[in-house]
Amino acid sequence: MPGLKTPKGTTDELPKEAFLYEEIIEKIRKVFVVHGATPISTPTFEMRSILVNKYGDDSKLIYNLSDQGGEICSLRYDLTVPFARYLASKKIKRMKRYQIGKVYRRDQPSVAKGRLREFVQADFDIAGECIAMMADAEVISCIDKILRVFEIGDFTIKVNDRRILTSILEIIGVAEKDYGNICSTIDKLDKMSVDELRKEFIQKGLTESQVLKIEEYMRQAGNKNVLEYLENDAIGSIERCKEAICSMKELFRLCKILGCDGCLTVDVSLARGLDYYTGMIIEAGYIGKQVGSVIGGGRYDNLTENLGVKGVAIACVGFSVGVSRIFSILCEQYCKESATVVYVGASGGLFLDERLSIIKILWGAGIAAETFYTKRSSFDDQIAYARKKGIPVIIVVGESEFVLKSVQVIDLTTNEKKIVLIEDIVKCIKELA
Amino acid sequence: MPGLKTPKGTTDELPKEAFLYEEIIEKIRKVFVVHGATPISTPTFEMRSILVNKYGDDSKLIYNLSDQGGEICSLRYDLTVPFARYLASKKIKRMKRYQIGKVYRRDQPSVAKGRLREFVQADFDIAGECIAMMADAEVISCIDKILRVFEIGDFTIKVNDRRILTSILEIIGVAEKDYGNICSTIDKLDKMSVDELRKEFIQKGLTESQVLKIEEYMRQAGNKNVLEYLENDAIGSIERCKEAICSMKELFRLCKILGCDGCLTVDVSLARGLDYYTGMIIEAGYIGKQVGSVIGGGRYDNLTENLGVKGVAIACVGFSVGVSRIFSILCEQYCKESATVVYVGASGGLFLDERLSIIKILWGAGIAAETFYTKRSSFDDQIAYARKKGIPVIIVVGESEFVLKSVQVIDLTTNEKKIVLIEDIVKCIKELA
Repeated sequence: MPGLKTPKGTTDELPKEAFLYEEIIEKIRKVFVVHGATPISTPTFEMRSILVNKYGDDSKLIYNLSDQGGEICSLRYDLTVPFARYLASKKIKRMKRYQIGKVYRRDQPSVAKGRLREFVQADFDIAGECIAMMADAEVISCIDKILRVFEIGDFTIKVNDRRILTSILEIIGVAEKDYGNICSTIDKLDKMSVDELRKEFIQKGLTESQVLKIEEYMRQAGNKNVLEYLENDAIGSIERCKEAICSMKELFRLCKILGCDGCLTVDVSLARGLDYYTGMIIEAGYIGKQVGSVIGGGRYDNLTENLGVKGVAIACVGFSVGVSRIFSILCEQYCKESATVVYVGASGGLFLDERLSIIKILWGAGIAAETFYTKRSSFDDQIAYARKKGIPVIIVVGESEFVLKSVQVIDLTTNEKKIVLIEDIVKCIKELA
Repeated sequence: MPGLKTPKGTTDELPKEAFLYEEIIEKIRKVFVVHGATPISTPTFEMRSILVNKYGDDSKLIYNLSDQGGEICSLRYDLTVPFARYLASKKIKRMKRYQIGKVYRRDQPSVAKGRLREFVQADFDIAGECIAMMADAEVISCIDKILRVFEIGDFTIKVNDRRILTSILEIIGVAEKDYGNICSTIDKLDKMSVDELRKEFIQKGLTESQVLKIEEYMRQAGNKNVLEYLENDAIGSIERCKEAICSMKELFRLCKILGCDGCLTVDVSLARGLDYYTGMIIEAGYIGKQVGSVIGGGRYDNLTENLGVKGVAIACVGFSVGVSRIFSILCEQYCKESATVVYVGASGGLFLDERLSIIKILWGAGIAAETFYTKRSSFDDQIAYARKKGIPVIIVVGESEFVLKSVQVIDLTTNEKKIVLIEDIVKCIKELA
């Protein structure tokens, strides 16, 4: 119905989709909890002033609320800026938190790729001063566990350091004020052709020789010895590049102890569009899947200070899981339609009161059960419904059995039938399920 | 910080609050699943046209999104209208679904009463033609279970029927077009004084004698034999009132079979402000708690048709749990700060690598563990932190033990200490926890 559509880029989740979302979120949540994180929640919308100048080019994708005679608010664009606001407003110096919730972006939607305007992110962040790279390594360890838990297949965790990127830009003579702008083009490396990229670099004011130099560095994306390459390159003499290389080496050392270095690589072409990263940046995803990266993150040590609270920069590192991306990989083979264990049917009559008295016993014992509501329902229809929904057991209420205070129980997986006393029904179902 | 506040009527959830929300939602979800319901999810915002004329006076409380050059949308006000839109758009004739999510109302907030502008509702609804009152009775049964699961104390489930209300209005001569308007004043009976109510009735055009007659009916709110009273009253001759009385009687009969009639009463003063109810209406809450009603709902048989799809009225009955209301009752005595089971400490040094190799083993076994990130941390501080967070076990890494491939394990509940081989650490923790 045309008048009944959902807004552009949003969608309804059908039961099996909602079941899958519940399962994905619960698996991620468990990994977060294993890492000792605590949950928090922030509002769906924030004061608009909190969100401005945080997302580079993408700020135009923020959803604004109408001015209805009160405050000026916008829907949250991610869970990272609200977290920084949370820390700064409460003067929290140390925290390991997770938050799982929807975020909103007025982007061009693509349902097939799991890109919607409203989507679920699951965020994990560690705030507070740390032994160098200790929290960064834990973040990689947490990402590694999450990517494994879905048993989707091989994955890569790519890391880079913002300081390496800015050193590259410095050495080729880009002005510091343009770093963010140029980085947002580098970020499109995997989405655009070489020609398109060149065109955008030139448009943003780079010379042809600068573009060629950037491309040379970007070609090191797949180089396993890229850190050594950079050390021997001219940028190896830039102080903050030295620091970054040193950090990356310590990251790999700690990840090895934590057992999460197997899928970890340095990719100097990794940029990420957001303005707020200051050190390590991360992108991770499954190999051979069309949805693109599944996890993104990094270190953002100045974000709390940028919110306007001078002198209270809180060092943070963390990541967001694109839950909808994982969903779109898993949804094809997923088919859970129902969590019901018992269908209470009837044969030879409605047996309303009798069915209700049986279902009361099941519900009371915490056994998921349902029955039919209609005035007419053939037993064949009942069986067909139960099979379609994947309900494993059917209890059949019939006159003769009920007089004897018993019911028929059919195990739909084996088609085994038996007569069970009503007082034994819970025990019987628990044995079957 | 003034610049870092959340928008009016919204709030951040601290870890212990977020833990409590997670627990409340999971308990409610389990009851829904036991009743054989499947989850769905709808977008946070809907086309504005879907939401207009559904909420009576309260439509002015809807949050609108800015017109940013696309569709005209509003944040959802409840989960009921989106569910009706879901059914109508997908031409679904029968469904038992739950949905748990935030809704948004620009109302006057009161944090103490759990009334915020953004709050969580947990909805359960049964759609589709049913044997009379069968689904209605199941809804009461589901409400009864939810109110019990939190062990808060005594509660009441009040029911009425919209047809009884409209019969009262008919018999005292209110024009049909004013029914909704007058009902929304009756709905305020428990929030306003008798004088304020009278004033509002008069303002809405009732005569004094009409107001006195309404008041007479409303005084039957606590009457246990109210159905008999109505049968013997003049309105007992109105056809739809007869039907409603008959429905209420059948409801009580079925609830008795389902074992959920103990806290159920008829309250003829129960109105509920929303426009869309057509039959049974419900309000439930705990006795002696300040938060007001915790659950509201009813039957809405015409809502799908009112969305503009003529001829596809889908009979629906269901309810919403005000999760935030339950939260505000429970939050005072709740004190879970952490879900961590093991704190990995160190004595006589930092032991970074050693701590990471221990925590790797724990994380790998799915044991929630954390350690310290700072360069300096006294053992006393570590113990104090673990106790404050309620972490039950601390593992102490120290030079001498590590050489012997073992660690010290302290059970913080009993203060019992022992030396455990690293290879036995998982087994040891599982025995303690």
